[in-house]
Amino acid sequence: MIAEIITIGDEILIGQIVDTNSAFIGKQLNKIGVDVHQISSIRDDKQHILNALTEAQSRADIVIVTGGLGPTKDDITKHTLCEYFNDELVINEEVLTHIEQLFDKYIKSPISEINKKQALIPSKAEVLYNEFGTAPGMWISHDNTVFISMPGVPFEMKSILINHAIPKIQERFDRPSILHKTILTYGMGESRIAEIIEKWEDNLPDFIKLAYLPNLGRVRLRLSARGKNKELLEKGIKDAVEELQPLIGDIIVGYDEDESIEKVIANLLTENKLTLSLAESCTGGKIANSFTAMEGASKYFNGSIVPYATNIKSKVLGVDFGIIKEHSVVSLKVVEAMALQTKQLFGSDFSIATTGNAGPTKGDSDAEVGTVCIAIATPKGIVSEEFVFSNHRKRTIGKAMNKSLEMLQEQILKHLS
Amino acid sequence: MIAEIITIGDEILIGQIVDTNSAFIGKQLNKIGVDVHQISSIRDDKQHILNALTEAQSRADIVIVTGGLGPTKDDITKHTLCEYFNDELVINEEVLTHIEQLFDKYIKSPISEINKKQALIPSKAEVLYNEFGTAPGMWISHDNTVFISMPGVPFEMKSILINHAIPKIQERFDRPSILHKTILTYGMGESRIAEIIEKWEDNLPDFIKLAYLPNLGRVRLRLSARGKNKELLEKGIKDAVEELQPLIGDIIVGYDEDESIEKVIANLLTENKLTLSLAESCTGGKIANSFTAMEGASKYFNGSIVPYATNIKSKVLGVDFGIIKEHSVVSLKVVEAMALQTKQLFGSDFSIATTGNAGPTKGDSDAEVGTVCIAIATPKGIVSEEFVFSNHRKRTIGKAMNKSLEMLQEQILKHLS
Repeated sequence: MIAEIITIGDEILIGQIVDTNSAFIGKQLNKIGVDVHQISSIRDDKQHILNALTEAQSRADIVIVTGGLGPTKDDITKHTLCEYFNDELVINEEVLTHIEQLFDKYIKSPISEINKKQALIPSKAEVLYNEFGTAPGMWISHDNTVFISMPGVPFEMKSILINHAIPKIQERFDRPSILHKTILTYGMGESRIAEIIEKWEDNLPDFIKLAYLPNLGRVRLRLSARGKNKELLEKGIKDAVEELQPLIGDIIVGYDEDESIEKVIANLLTENKLTLSLAESCTGGKIANSFTAMEGASKYFNGSIVPYATNIKSKVLGVDFGIIKEHSVVSLKVVEAMALQTKQLFGSDFSIATTGNAGPTKGDSDAEVGTVCIAIATPKGIVSEEFVFSNHRKRTIGKAMNKSLEMLQEQILKHLS
Repeated sequence: MIAEIITIGDEILIGQIVDTNSAFIGKQLNKIGVDVHQISSIRDDKQHILNALTEAQSRADIVIVTGGLGPTKDDITKHTLCEYFNDELVINEEVLTHIEQLFDKYIKSPISEINKKQALIPSKAEVLYNEFGTAPGMWISHDNTVFISMPGVPFEMKSILINHAIPKIQERFDRPSILHKTILTYGMGESRIAEIIEKWEDNLPDFIKLAYLPNLGRVRLRLSARGKNKELLEKGIKDAVEELQPLIGDIIVGYDEDESIEKVIANLLTENKLTLSLAESCTGGKIANSFTAMEGASKYFNGSIVPYATNIKSKVLGVDFGIIKEHSVVSLKVVEAMALQTKQLFGSDFSIATTGNAGPTKGDSDAEVGTVCIAIATPKGIVSEEFVFSNHRKRTIGKAMNKSLEMLQEQILKHLS
């Protein structure tokens, strides 16, 4: 079962929008054992669309097309599909009624001629209902390939895909199994891991494929198994993961690809009724944002301060200015004082403090660009460490966050053990 | 001048990562008059890569390939390029020295055999220096097409593209002109705009194309002009924009697509030597992070506090607890007090405060999920407003940030006028 995705729209090719739809579609298809072979982003151009449809049909059982279904003149997907299928557009009464209801409820104006045209669909198409918008999804079978066309607006596409297209694919196609297992590791580089597990990798069964997904000090290892016998795949993955344990068990922090370290820490804190506060000079709010983006943050997150200007570190946070003067603003002494002050000020069990120079130019300290000091204050004491992460601002901030979380997790686990 | 982009990696096809590289590359090529015809995301599979290279070469003058250049076994781009070009891998001494320096500085361990292999490049390739990583970019001319291969790690790719690939393209190719002008509108639907400007659209010169890009109440209209005579294109776009003014001038809010509002505010503050501080209860660090991610933040950003727990709002920030008790924590009175206290505490000219309930459940207040209060303290006073944004946590936080920035910008402009 092979699928291809075609996303239509000049705005993707000139980089005005990032195509997030394809990743969403890929993930959903993958879950039901449909294998995405290629994603092609193409122009709002009739001939280009026709060529892409022909090529995709020659390789795939399912072709998913998004975009180009709006009411305006630059949207030509529907007409082009008609030409490709040698079909004609007809008014679909059900869709027309839906459009009229949407206008009545949200726009509070009569439906325009332009919007009426959104109810035109190829006569051979089955409608995939679009709860949130006026452009319907369409399902067209043609020479042993199924074509699914959906609007490019992400939340409309998602609703059509999940509620209508995926169930229909499951109903109409026999599919092989695809299983993935993601192993999250911390604190070791991709190439060092590869050396350690080389023999294990060479001995993986043929139906299992390994991929390395490195990201700022974290490396995810993704095992993908594919075949007809689901039990065999499950056993293969289980065995492979078990054999990995003695090799790199000490750097494995989790297995669920969706489980981030923030989530793991949030769960640890919540379950044990522990609280956290932050002083983020170098990381500038990034860690606070990563916790507060998750629901339930108020259960463990007391708050945070970004003492960005040097004088704020003493004036608001209460770090002794003498320490800053003596040791410089990027120093272990200062970051420890920041963490301890924050813990006290916010009345939390743990606190993280970061201070550093992310660059590109030197700031209020002589510290080399990329230098970051991190401290974790715990119920029993404090740990701190100095790093030189990189010469790239966002990378240094990202690495400082990841390292802070790693250090915090270690201290929480130590506290609980 | 036609380019195609090929992104290699199973992780894109199974939706584990979103391909943001292509949009960045598309935008940069577009700026220098190179037209991206297609973006293809393909598997880590030799035959698939070879097919994609052949197809892209048949259509394009420049083929840009990203991904598959890591040190591990699943990364096969380099070997496949060698097969395609009938070439062989040779050690590049310059790259090897660079890798050794990176290891010496950041990894503090001797270079491994696996990493040494990163210095292998096809003998026909010119190196595009990768300042931030071990996998070099490569430039290979082959049968009138130029192939550019870069690692998939976004910040490494960006640096290679901007500093090396783009200048080389500009130097080696004659290019036609492509001009874009994006018109930002607010508060009118796509189809209603289309009706109003239909005649204008029909009368656009042939070399100008119009696209509608709708997104949650905002519709961007993009005009693209293409041709040899840059002056003619400029005049065509200028005339078209002028003719649009009497038709929809009242809903046009801006023209520049690139400039984020954070960047605009950062420039305004820096140029006028003004400073900013934040109290982000509802937005939880997101606004601070958006400013501190940009270099030069220390010139205007004094700092921020995330008074997440209700008691922190009074204990650390100093908001009178009586006000919180009387008006509830999500109220205009409280958010105004937060902004004023923050401005004073951090000694800044402006401050933003947010408090709200992003959901999914109600917190320390009875406010409906999605309710957010925002205040801007200015050198002369304070403004505040209450909103109900959405029933989706991240969406509410994002909208609260955008609205805060919009309100801040308005107040800064008012102050400066």
